[in-house]
Amino acid sequence: MNDIKKLSDNEIDSRLQTIEGWTRKNDTISKEFVFDDFVAAFGFMTKVAMVAESMNHHPDWSNAYKKVGISLSTHEVSGISELDFSLAEKIDRLA
Amino acid sequence: MNDIKKLSDNEIDSRLQTIEGWTRKNDTISKEFVFDDFVAAFGFMTKVAMVAESMNHHPDWSNAYKKVGISLSTHEVSGISELDFSLAEKIDRLA
Repeated sequence: MNDIKKLSDNEIDSRLQTIEGWTRKNDTISKEFVFDDFVAAFGFMTKVAMVAESMNHHPDWSNAYKKVGISLSTHEVSGISELDFSLAEKIDRLA
Repeated sequence: MNDIKKLSDNEIDSRLQTIEGWTRKNDTISKEFVFDDFVAAFGFMTKVAMVAESMNHHPDWSNAYKKVGISLSTHEVSGISELDFSLAEKIDRLA
């Protein structure tokens, strides 16, 4: 895919300005989502799972009852690529 | 529910003998499952989610591609109860 290029620190910082609530930790961008209950949280995860599978780009994520924590990174480049931001935008639209 | 009683260390140890691959860490029992790919891993999670919701007893869990890590504990008793072992057995049957 064209998108798999490791972004520089400056590119990551400026791209982070375009999405809400995502923060960078080392080579990942992450965000926590809180829903009304487990069914809502897992329903969201199911939607994200389908998008992730169709992009062949998968999150590292966790769930505890109504909370979902998502971390994104691109293993192929050992860092953060545009794929991560593209998936983050899709995730935000599903939340 | 009748099952919500905090188990003693001895009770937990002997109950752990009855299930495979689960280990105790403080007030949780946990296990890691590895599948062929993301679809298999998330498919498993979906089945577990339905069982957990029907028991009204939910895991703390994480997923990274084909791996699923599950931790169980019973908040109501600040410890491990029979509910956790009951869910663990159901999870093992779904894996």
